[in-house]
Amino acid sequence: MHGVILAGGSGSRLWPLSRELYPKQLLKINTEKSLLEATYTRLLQIMDEKSIINITNRKHLSDVKSQLDVISKNVTLLSEPVSKNTAPAAAVCVKYIMDKKGDDLVLILPSDHLIKDNKLFAKTISIGEKYAKEGYIVTFGITPSSPQEGYGYIKTGKDLNKKEAFTVAEFKEKPDEKTAKKYFKSGKYYWNSGIFLFKASIFMNALKEYAPEIYSIALEFNFKKNSEIDFMKFDKMPSISLDYAIMEHAKNIAVVPLLSDWNDLGCWESIYDISKKNKEGNVNIGNVISKDCKNSMLYSSDRLIAGVGLDNVLLVETADAVLVCDKNKTQEVKYIYEKLKEANNETHRIHTTVYRPWGYYTVLNQGEGYLTKMICVSPRGQLSLQSHNFRSEHWVVLKGTARVTLDNKTYILKPGSSIDIPVKIKHSLANPYDVELKIIEVQKGDKLVEEDIIRYKDIYGRTKA
Amino acid sequence: MHGVILAGGSGSRLWPLSRELYPKQLLKINTEKSLLEATYTRLLQIMDEKSIINITNRKHLSDVKSQLDVISKNVTLLSEPVSKNTAPAAAVCVKYIMDKKGDDLVLILPSDHLIKDNKLFAKTISIGEKYAKEGYIVTFGITPSSPQEGYGYIKTGKDLNKKEAFTVAEFKEKPDEKTAKKYFKSGKYYWNSGIFLFKASIFMNALKEYAPEIYSIALEFNFKKNSEIDFMKFDKMPSISLDYAIMEHAKNIAVVPLLSDWNDLGCWESIYDISKKNKEGNVNIGNVISKDCKNSMLYSSDRLIAGVGLDNVLLVETADAVLVCDKNKTQEVKYIYEKLKEANNETHRIHTTVYRPWGYYTVLNQGEGYLTKMICVSPRGQLSLQSHNFRSEHWVVLKGTARVTLDNKTYILKPGSSIDIPVKIKHSLANPYDVELKIIEVQKGDKLVEEDIIRYKDIYGRTKA
Repeated sequence: MHGVILAGGSGSRLWPLSRELYPKQLLKINTEKSLLEATYTRLLQIMDEKSIINITNRKHLSDVKSQLDVISKNVTLLSEPVSKNTAPAAAVCVKYIMDKKGDDLVLILPSDHLIKDNKLFAKTISIGEKYAKEGYIVTFGITPSSPQEGYGYIKTGKDLNKKEAFTVAEFKEKPDEKTAKKYFKSGKYYWNSGIFLFKASIFMNALKEYAPEIYSIALEFNFKKNSEIDFMKFDKMPSISLDYAIMEHAKNIAVVPLLSDWNDLGCWESIYDISKKNKEGNVNIGNVISKDCKNSMLYSSDRLIAGVGLDNVLLVETADAVLVCDKNKTQEVKYIYEKLKEANNETHRIHTTVYRPWGYYTVLNQGEGYLTKMICVSPRGQLSLQSHNFRSEHWVVLKGTARVTLDNKTYILKPGSSIDIPVKIKHSLANPYDVELKIIEVQKGDKLVEEDIIRYKDIYGRTKA
Repeated sequence: MHGVILAGGSGSRLWPLSRELYPKQLLKINTEKSLLEATYTRLLQIMDEKSIINITNRKHLSDVKSQLDVISKNVTLLSEPVSKNTAPAAAVCVKYIMDKKGDDLVLILPSDHLIKDNKLFAKTISIGEKYAKEGYIVTFGITPSSPQEGYGYIKTGKDLNKKEAFTVAEFKEKPDEKTAKKYFKSGKYYWNSGIFLFKASIFMNALKEYAPEIYSIALEFNFKKNSEIDFMKFDKMPSISLDYAIMEHAKNIAVVPLLSDWNDLGCWESIYDISKKNKEGNVNIGNVISKDCKNSMLYSSDRLIAGVGLDNVLLVETADAVLVCDKNKTQEVKYIYEKLKEANNETHRIHTTVYRPWGYYTVLNQGEGYLTKMICVSPRGQLSLQSHNFRSEHWVVLKGTARVTLDNKTYILKPGSSIDIPVKIKHSLANPYDVELKIIEVQKGDKLVEEDIIRYKDIYGRTKA
């Protein structure tokens, strides 16, 4: 069996912790592992690392890579040149598997769901395996815990064997409240988890029949020759989900009820639901002090939060934004995210702290003509060899030791010492030592944007083509 | 007539905007003037600047001075060497007036009350003047708008003239809910405003009779010779309020109802009450975006705040702390302040941004062995000539032009240029120009505390004794 982890996804629902450039699956919300890391680890107990293909949008590539590289030395990571929903992503991954490994079972799953009981998950997959081998496209259904309006529903048909699996009578889109209650009462419906299992060839046939456009373009890819996803080809595919493209039309679909726990962490309220609470029903995370609060969640990632007399309030604090919300209205956070996006407010897109494979940086302050960052380089990490056309930089070492290359000369800088990086001069920053390196960077110039960068060598020291 | 502005006061009630080192009277909450500036300006329409004496705790001296210096070139500002409540402060100020100006009427008032109608205020004072001249100690009463438990009450005795003034039957301490309602219904009570008017000699006689300890020490001060308040003497005075020391005992007290509006801004709820609201009853200040909120207040002084579905919630955001509170529980904020104080958490005491006569600085980040500040020097402002025993500093100019004196040499630094300040070397920073100067300061050392400073010349260039 092969696994495909869909690691795209936007950052709107868990804003301000998630951002367009730092979506839900990358987050560690009071957990050791991110949802992506947990998903990858979950698959590793069903298959070996060489059988797992991850696919993500190019803008998340470095973050996804840096998380997975910690878990495995053999990460296969495909980059979507452009966002195209789940069907095109699944199509190219299945074609990739057929080209490289031949026809095999393929398990497709999102990267941002929380499942704690990996054993029961594995057991469910092995049940699905049986039906996938029989030629079914298997989808995994979640037993509804309440009449949710936020999920798609799957209506079961005939029981295939002691309720371990059913044929699918119908896929239903997100229902209204009344309909959702009806579904819930009937006991005939499951939530659509977005997890699928099928034989590669069976999937390609379904594509051919129900999504010929995607099928024909998928065939143009030859991953035997080239593992990169060609932009021109991929961009021609319609942006559509697997459900719309195939599941709602295909005849040979079976649904296997998921035996394990499941939570899609679709909003902050669900984060509250799964979190450990004190006896007043409060979830306090980080630097929090509170008095007479109940059923509330105070999440500090940076500064002190003081809560007084709150009931059913959710607050999430980050370095550049604070969300305060009625705990039952957290779905509306999407609205805030969209508003910020419209207003072109960077707060929807990035954090003031941005993680990179070599460490991270935090924007400390900025004004007309200047920008100040704190840059932290992990032990043995290094930045690319680069230059800037519109800005000069000044570096001051706070902690650790920096190895700076400037115009082909090398400088070793200890805490307190500083260096000027003039406009247009090639430079790089490295931390070849065992303790983290922290420096202050003061940028000066009329045009201070991340895009003002020319890279000559990447962070692995490889010269750019 | 002379005026005494009591400009001490802690910063607990409007935390996190107010701090121990930046109390309520210094704040500009959505207003152009601070409460202190407004109080001083209010007095200026009744008397000239030479007749106004301000007194504050030494730890607030520089902040109080920098605010008043903008309004007047003739600010009289006395420094309490130690906090001793209102009676000792009033006593030394009255003695100061008798020594310097002789026996005159004295109007004593707090610096942190909001009064918008200065004309009606002045009219009330002129009524009080009449009775003060007759030998009364006049207190000004606030007509209760509700049965508040948070104020002291004054029970009226005999009507002195068409209800423009009454004798005082009794001073009542903060009542319980039941008693407060009784007072409110009776119509015989006023709130104690803490504003007093009397003849200096009458006040001294009352001191002599009811607070002999304070009286005898007050006599030891000779302000003809020395305008400084001697610590050894002042520290011997008991810490007690004017009400306890005199008002509750003196016989010759009259209460004059204040004709103007009045608000002591005793808690965040009262800030909400006086603020302009949108049609949903929300007060949004600063960088705020909200959806489906009502009767709430979102105050951003730094980052973006997003509010969703809130009702009756108050949120105040500062660079280092966030308060989120049921709008009717804002009195409890005092508890948070005390907790932080106990825990020795600096967040109760100072802001990450600290205002100085020459401008301000903001702590950007700190860690083991380093601390980074953004220092902003106002046009023509300068810092003292100083040195440090335990830290070196590195300055990078972000904006404007810096004149740096280092070891008796002078350097002119433009944006982007930097300079090292070694340990123990005398240095000063000045901005002799018309645009503000911004620099990044990186401190390095094992002991990075504000106290590590030796000053040779003050900010006015005067050599220290």
